[in-house]
Amino acid sequence: MRGSHRDVKSPVKLGIGDDCALFYMSEDRVGLITTDTLIEDTHFRLKWTDLFSLGRKSLNVNLSDVAAMGGLPLFYTLSLGLPSSLLSEEVEAFYAGLDDAATAFGVQLVGGDTCNSPLLMISITLVGESVKDTLVLRKGAKPGDLLAISGVPGLSAVGLEALERGISHKEAGEAIAAHLDPSPKIELGRFLAERGVATAMIDTSDGLAWDCQKIAQESGVAVVLERKSIPLPIVPQDFAHDPLFYALHGGEDYQLLFTLSPLRMPVLAQICNRLNERITIIGRVEEGEGVFIEEEDSRVPLEPEGFKHF
Amino acid sequence: MRGSHRDVKSPVKLGIGDDCALFYMSEDRVGLITTDTLIEDTHFRLKWTDLFSLGRKSLNVNLSDVAAMGGLPLFYTLSLGLPSSLLSEEVEAFYAGLDDAATAFGVQLVGGDTCNSPLLMISITLVGESVKDTLVLRKGAKPGDLLAISGVPGLSAVGLEALERGISHKEAGEAIAAHLDPSPKIELGRFLAERGVATAMIDTSDGLAWDCQKIAQESGVAVVLERKSIPLPIVPQDFAHDPLFYALHGGEDYQLLFTLSPLRMPVLAQICNRLNERITIIGRVEEGEGVFIEEEDSRVPLEPEGFKHF
Repeated sequence: MRGSHRDVKSPVKLGIGDDCALFYMSEDRVGLITTDTLIEDTHFRLKWTDLFSLGRKSLNVNLSDVAAMGGLPLFYTLSLGLPSSLLSEEVEAFYAGLDDAATAFGVQLVGGDTCNSPLLMISITLVGESVKDTLVLRKGAKPGDLLAISGVPGLSAVGLEALERGISHKEAGEAIAAHLDPSPKIELGRFLAERGVATAMIDTSDGLAWDCQKIAQESGVAVVLERKSIPLPIVPQDFAHDPLFYALHGGEDYQLLFTLSPLRMPVLAQICNRLNERITIIGRVEEGEGVFIEEEDSRVPLEPEGFKHF
Repeated sequence: MRGSHRDVKSPVKLGIGDDCALFYMSEDRVGLITTDTLIEDTHFRLKWTDLFSLGRKSLNVNLSDVAAMGGLPLFYTLSLGLPSSLLSEEVEAFYAGLDDAATAFGVQLVGGDTCNSPLLMISITLVGESVKDTLVLRKGAKPGDLLAISGVPGLSAVGLEALERGISHKEAGEAIAAHLDPSPKIELGRFLAERGVATAMIDTSDGLAWDCQKIAQESGVAVVLERKSIPLPIVPQDFAHDPLFYALHGGEDYQLLFTLSPLRMPVLAQICNRLNERITIIGRVEEGEGVFIEEEDSRVPLEPEGFKHF
């Protein structure tokens, strides 16, 4: 009796290793599932974020994983560990933020549990779906493709450093907002998938260098970044690094990084106009392996330095 | 574009309020999703459990929720917060325990994340499925039904107290094992559902009194427990309560509590024989509301006292 379905076919289409795992829902629909946990003092500090923004971000980082595959988000479960020091209005603000993000993308809370915890701990699992042939994985990039990114990579890392240094929202407001309250690119992801634009896609959660590495590895190609094309964040004076460093190695941007055939550029232009999104071509895909950064005549391998949480 | 499916029909069949939430997978299949989090010093203590058993339990408590609806478990995601004090062999033992439970029930780990955490924190989301018409909810109990339970309620609570009191495994081994390493009743749940035996079902995670209350409330009926029929755990001398108290108010047994028509008793007997399960009829369903306990001529309302974690 047990396992009668699995004797015929595994229910899992794709396991660990992409933004979401995939499972078969029906003949023409594929389910997506992703999970992300935020732990106080590992992923956020309560002195830097309001609870409403934290609620939004908790769901939005999961939504970003569904966006990265061109999926439609459906519903989510929540496990919440609450320290007794949290005021009831703070808990309410957290739920209001969650609900705000859920309403914006039409997803529903279907279950979960709440318990006491010495630190605030938020674990969300999000389920989405996609019509089978429109899903975009990390592995579809082909030599000759262009590499494109939405938004400005590194902005969130600049925002984090601004918070650490106690720099005012007035001076670094855009970067701080990018860090505390990122917007998942659900509509952009779905357009890029359904119009057949993106050949490979990932959300930029670990920094451009790492995320390019994943596309290169999964697709079995080399990714070449053109230094002068990469949009750079504005970095306040006295910060630890130059703008390019934040762009290459800063994480938690939750923008979309994708590859496309040059022939699909006109469709991409239409999508950008329609959604009012800023998309920049920052490189290209070649035969080979690894990630390189190119400036005029020089080309050097780019080693990921990853993104360090505080 | 966004929400195009949901304009026609919500993907969610049943939200918060049963052992699992339900969603539509295809015409004849329903998906089940459930999530449970275990936090160190809230749900377990590392000095009482080995990491292998903890890994098994983390998945098994989720499997129990699928069992309680008569579903087939498919795959799971894992979010793990690891304290730096944990040795690598302890982490390996935890994963081995997880894998042991997963293999026993044919479920696959499909994704998740791991991060640093001041305390060990394990959050699992499990997805299962069921053929649509065989699912058993909490709300199907009817006046005239019998009330049945697998195993011995309260055993896990006795085991927890034994651990708290430092009583040896030799003296309270069965109870300690019930607490540290419960077995989800997947096969039993599926037989009870597919053979049309159970009219309402729940897993006993919060204590018999609470779990009866949920069936009574969801079904709009009264549940009457017959005191002399309730199987009781063996309680070592000097423990805080008498055996009936543990049976009524102890939690975390992860057995199945269900209602059935008396006409289905012969089928239940076949299932018990086939699976070698101990099932006891402990009461009945009547018109009305609330939970009562009956002994000879007296009948008193039973107020849930819930299960206190340490």
